[in-house]
Amino acid sequence: MDSRTYADALASVRGTIPLVHCITNYVTVMDVANALLASGGSPIMSDEPEDVRDITTICGGLVINIGTLNMRSIEAMRVAGERASELGHPIVLDPVGAGASELRTKTASELADSLAVTVVRGNMSEIKALAGASASTRGVDVDPDDVVTDANLPSSAAFAREVASKLGCVVAITGAIDLVADRERVYAIRNGVAMMGGITGTGCMLDAIIAAYVVANPDQVLEATVTAVAGWGLSGEIAEGRMSEMDGNSSFRNYLIDAECNLTADQLVAGARVERVEAS
Amino acid sequence: MDSRTYADALASVRGTIPLVHCITNYVTVMDVANALLASGGSPIMSDEPEDVRDITTICGGLVINIGTLNMRSIEAMRVAGERASELGHPIVLDPVGAGASELRTKTASELADSLAVTVVRGNMSEIKALAGASASTRGVDVDPDDVVTDANLPSSAAFAREVASKLGCVVAITGAIDLVADRERVYAIRNGVAMMGGITGTGCMLDAIIAAYVVANPDQVLEATVTAVAGWGLSGEIAEGRMSEMDGNSSFRNYLIDAECNLTADQLVAGARVERVEAS
Amino acid sequence: MDSRTYADALASVRGTIPLVHCITNYVTVMDVANALLASGGSPIMSDEPEDVRDITTICGGLVINIGTLNMRSIEAMRVAGERASELGHPIVLDPVGAGASELRTKTASELADSLAVTVVRGNMSEIKALAGASASTRGVDVDPDDVVTDANLPSSAAFAREVASKLGCVVAITGAIDLVADRERVYAIRNGVAMMGGITGTGCMLDAIIAAYVVANPDQVLEATVTAVAGWGLSGEIAEGRMSEMDGNSSFRNYLIDAECNLTADQLVAGARVERVEAS
Repeated sequence: MDSRTYADALASVRGTIPLVHCITNYVTVMDVANALLASGGSPIMSDEPEDVRDITTICGGLVINIGTLNMRSIEAMRVAGERASELGHPIVLDPVGAGASELRTKTASELADSLAVTVVRGNMSEIKALAGASASTRGVDVDPDDVVTDANLPSSAAFAREVASKLGCVVAITGAIDLVADRERVYAIRNGVAMMGGITGTGCMLDAIIAAYVVANPDQVLEATVTAVAGWGLSGEIAEGRMSEMDGNSSFRNYLIDAECNLTADQLVAGARVERVEAS
Repeated sequence: MDSRTYADALASVRGTIPLVHCITNYVTVMDVANALLASGGSPIMSDEPEDVRDITTICGGLVINIGTLNMRSIEAMRVAGERASELGHPIVLDPVGAGASELRTKTASELADSLAVTVVRGNMSEIKALAGASASTRGVDVDPDDVVTDANLPSSAAFAREVASKLGCVVAITGAIDLVADRERVYAIRNGVAMMGGITGTGCMLDAIIAAYVVANPDQVLEATVTAVAGWGLSGEIAEGRMSEMDGNSSFRNYLIDAECNLTADQLVAGARVERVEAS
Repeated sequence: MDSRTYADALASVRGTIPLVHCITNYVTVMDVANALLASGGSPIMSDEPEDVRDITTICGGLVINIGTLNMRSIEAMRVAGERASELGHPIVLDPVGAGASELRTKTASELADSLAVTVVRGNMSEIKALAGASASTRGVDVDPDDVVTDANLPSSAAFAREVASKLGCVVAITGAIDLVADRERVYAIRNGVAMMGGITGTGCMLDAIIAAYVVANPDQVLEATVTAVAGWGLSGEIAEGRMSEMDGNSSFRNYLIDAECNLTADQLVAGARVERVEAS
């Protein structure tokens, strides 16, 4: 992708302040809200079925993250998702823990099937479970066997493209190497640091940031998603660079959101490590 | 207001550690608890209808914030609100998103009508929606048309006083210029910084701080509310003063709560920018 | 306890990354997740009755914290607790606010009676309420009459041992002086700082850290619990040492989790202040 794409995608978010309705887990919800604000968007949270139709209507996009799903919030996901689909609002779906429980796998699959999902984001184990591939999930973490490496990059890219084609949306598989694919193209993103796995919520925050980017760049869903993912990884790198001897994961978390807040087009252009991958 | 009022209000909070039952949204609840502790109060959270009567009974005051309302928590708000009303405990009501959904507008109105609310706090759009005035709400943010400015200050003050009179309580309308009114007097507060809108929860945290101030200063509800609002805005200013180049909204959030934690009577007396406004 | 015990307990956690299912309150849940990650464990949160059986099955241990219990989450606690009991997974129970409401006291007692609880952790008022002793609870804080002091240490230790015997588990009573007891031995731990009471969630975070330590050290439950408690208090001391003039409770909270994240065996060995207490 060229420099202009990153810069334009970022500028669109900052210039339009996309309002994003988030139905997300209660673990990381505050960081999701603050990371979304940091990126340039604006959050509204609501997960009551009687409330979500109105709320999603006034927003530009919807995040559905099943991290702490319950019967009420699943119903809210359905109602909000149907309304957002009707209105043509972008929907980002995060199948947290798909593969780890029957309820999660089933709920994620049903939502992916019934809604006009724009982007699915998860780790490789979750995406495999969602795609119906055999997968084992280590709770909310990726199974070691599912890690994307240079060695399996072509086949992983082919899988990503295949899932994108099957689900009819952009797929973002995040990990040490991130893959973002639609039915034709696959990008690998090599930004990010290991410490991002040492805090909770880096994936959930990215869901909301992707939503902001996609809402603000509706004609470039793939490019917007790549930019959001690269920018978030880059923010992790910048955060790591600020760490002093006594800092740990809690300070890192602040630095990460701070970096997203201060992210510039110049930083993105200079720091994004994105390559087009030929799927095998 | 004179210097003594600020100093006394602050000292009462720190000296009595008011226990506040918060039924608040799950987005910002942790920061609400920490901000309340920072101010000198002590939090208890409970939103199960079967639990809240006992919990509110042992507290000094109640915060009802409808930010992520659901059918269960609405019932808990009613039960706790009725019990607090019975006991004469101060109640702070925050109609988050009133005007943005039918459920929010209706719930906020019913609670305001049926409970002995002491202070209502919200942005101008929410307060207009609660008061039944025509209002459009941009989700949980104020509508640009509803911003209080120097130009519309007299009419805004008149509106605040009118709502206070109609609802029979103190009304705090927060924004770039904050207004705090009862049926007779209106104060404008010019503390605070724009960055407070760059994090989630500044309003929710203020709800709990106001509750602590009102519980600790029961005979001076208007003055206590003004002091809480001015102190919070001043904390924002102090926080902004600590920001270094790489800091963003996440560090600001820490500095803000830190500043509330360290707030002194001297800072308040020197820094509060409060004026009595003649309503037009 | 000897130095080797601390070092081994810490190394086991870091070496095995225990996966802990947490059913905890929504107030402090994000800090619980980050503190658990800091200690070396890994969190999964789920409180939907239809989901928890699967989730607990893939974990190594379970935390049940009733801080914001509701009818749904209570049912989830039962289902998950029974499954964990079946599988022999360690269970840490935190009876938050037992004594403050009938529902909390009853729920905590029922869970303690019906499940194979491994460690109960709470303040003295909560543990008294759980044990059926007469106790008054100041909300979620300890009643001043219940504080463990040097003067009442022998009788407090006797009480701790008695509760441990009655409940058939390790009991951790935390406060200025912490007591950790099984039916035979009682340890007093004098780590920690007052500022830990100035933030929300120090107890909740400790619940999860204890779970990680107990999962990783299944044959040394008492020693693992003592190590977790001492390490957490020591982290508080290290955090306090980083505080600069403008820092308040929010920065302290970051420093605390950071210190747990960076905690070394050497620090533990040098800094743990643990003594065996003869119960009177």
